[in-house]
Amino acid sequence: MTTRMRSEIGEQPTALRATLDALLPRVDEVRRLGDQTRQLLFIARGTSDNAAVYGRYLTEARTGRLATLAAPSIATTYRRKLDLDGVLAVALSQSGRTEEIVETLTWAADCGARTVAITNGGPESPLAQAADLALCTEAGEEKAVPATKTYTTALAALAVLALGLGADVEPADLQRVPDAVEKLIHDPGDLDAVVEGLAGKPGVVVSGRGMAFSTALELALKLKEACYMHAMGLSYADLLHGPIAVVDADTPAILVAAGEGPTLPGTIALAERVTGAGAAAYGVGGGTGLAAVSTASLNGPDLPEWVAPLGLIVPGQLLTEALARRLGIDPDAPRGLKKVTQTD
Amino acid sequence: MTTRMRSEIGEQPTALRATLDALLPRVDEVRRLGDQTRQLLFIARGTSDNAAVYGRYLTEARTGRLATLAAPSIATTYRRKLDLDGVLAVALSQSGRTEEIVETLTWAADCGARTVAITNGGPESPLAQAADLALCTEAGEEKAVPATKTYTTALAALAVLALGLGADVEPADLQRVPDAVEKLIHDPGDLDAVVEGLAGKPGVVVSGRGMAFSTALELALKLKEACYMHAMGLSYADLLHGPIAVVDADTPAILVAAGEGPTLPGTIALAERVTGAGAAAYGVGGGTGLAAVSTASLNGPDLPEWVAPLGLIVPGQLLTEALARRLGIDPDAPRGLKKVTQTD
Repeated sequence: MTTRMRSEIGEQPTALRATLDALLPRVDEVRRLGDQTRQLLFIARGTSDNAAVYGRYLTEARTGRLATLAAPSIATTYRRKLDLDGVLAVALSQSGRTEEIVETLTWAADCGARTVAITNGGPESPLAQAADLALCTEAGEEKAVPATKTYTTALAALAVLALGLGADVEPADLQRVPDAVEKLIHDPGDLDAVVEGLAGKPGVVVSGRGMAFSTALELALKLKEACYMHAMGLSYADLLHGPIAVVDADTPAILVAAGEGPTLPGTIALAERVTGAGAAAYGVGGGTGLAAVSTASLNGPDLPEWVAPLGLIVPGQLLTEALARRLGIDPDAPRGLKKVTQTD
Repeated sequence: MTTRMRSEIGEQPTALRATLDALLPRVDEVRRLGDQTRQLLFIARGTSDNAAVYGRYLTEARTGRLATLAAPSIATTYRRKLDLDGVLAVALSQSGRTEEIVETLTWAADCGARTVAITNGGPESPLAQAADLALCTEAGEEKAVPATKTYTTALAALAVLALGLGADVEPADLQRVPDAVEKLIHDPGDLDAVVEGLAGKPGVVVSGRGMAFSTALELALKLKEACYMHAMGLSYADLLHGPIAVVDADTPAILVAAGEGPTLPGTIALAERVTGAGAAAYGVGGGTGLAAVSTASLNGPDLPEWVAPLGLIVPGQLLTEALARRLGIDPDAPRGLKKVTQTD
């Protein structure tokens, strides 16, 4: 039996093409709204917060603007106004109906920010209605609890946002993403070896740096949600400040990197350190350099670093789905979770 | 035998008194430097990054300024300039010698920021030398690898920083901290029960919200470093977006809250949800309300919420030290770690 999660992973090339077709013509709207923006404020939770981490690195590294991940409790619990003049606030919610996120975006507008919504909930969703500009993804309905196609299409919307903010990148790279994702779905690499390597292990460290840090956080979240693993998502540098102590024969590491870019050499060096300590290191992406020093590895997309996260998560999604089934868990409906989470 | 970590935990009342004596007279210097500040940028790694989370919530909730945790790789790996005009950059490093942090603070100054260093490395340390203003903590030499007194004194320096930025708090609250910490060291609550509850468990979720989120992250880091536990530090809201699935009979939760403040009711509700799911919930602080719904609990400080994190970590430090010994680990020298971590 094919799970819904597996079907939805397979729908990503189509969902990405539809989303890019819908959003690329709107780059000029973003440009006009973002004209006076000196900094970004991303508002999100859970999977959407991991997407926001990509948005943060992308806008800092490629548009030269400082970007902040909001602490929603300042708005909803402490109820404190901040000076957000000159700030572009970008809220992400797949449903567009998480009250905390809608409330925090409204607070940002009250504080002087211009506002953007990124949602799969459509233009009539409360989040889209609350924003100056709504970038609606075209993922279609997502039924499995672990988000897959709503995550990658949200990354596509963030890439469009960066284009509108004048990112120094080649826009045509974005058009290459759907085909690259399709290729990964058909050939994710040594999935069986990584599934067997993780099955029965209580915990795992998932690490990446820069643009790929978002992928590490998202893969760790998926493994927590759907496989009940103690998965710790950490940047490569933070891992060395303490948590490296937990990596051992019983706690493997998954290391994620684009096939090019300035963070790749450090990721390869980290893999060597992990295997040198007697633990397994599973590579995701990172080209032949990372694969050569990994215990086993999954393929990454053949894409430039700035769009690589749109593909890098895909083998991780396939890993999560296969590992959940291997552990006797239904990945479509993990315990304790609902599709739309309400927090205050 | 008393470990160095235990001795250094006990030195915190003295270290905090000395630090406050040194730094409170310098509030006016902070005020002059911070005069034109519209937002804060904190630069740190590891334990210092957890201190920065306190600084972030404190300056947002109490001074009305947006605060950001820097992504050092933008400076050191991507080498991208950002517009940091009007930004006060605050770098934290206990040694004052972590090259990545010194380099990122220097980058911030090049980008137009004013700069503050918070360090226990003294005024001659590279970080203090690189900053417009150095707030040097007076923790004395720290020999155990897990930071304790350098962490709480860094929080004290951040509280002084907030006073200089005009925080709407009662400054005299800060003077109550050393006595409150002393009291906790002598009476941390039901330490034995919590140690026994965690011993042998592979993982634990540590959660808190707002000001206390910093304490949850720091306690999770300590349990990773010194007890090799798969400890996941999560905000109360992020926990509900997915990772709640990992909490089960074999994965307890530690929930941290000040004895008062707007995040306490949510923390109590979370403890009830965790025990309702059949898992153990260990409270740290949160007054009689949190203790009443917890499986066992550690005492928190009798302090207002804004300074509570300076005391809330102390029972967690005692827990870490006792649990490490219970597990046969020398907490003074965990595997894989050095006192000064160099990352690039």
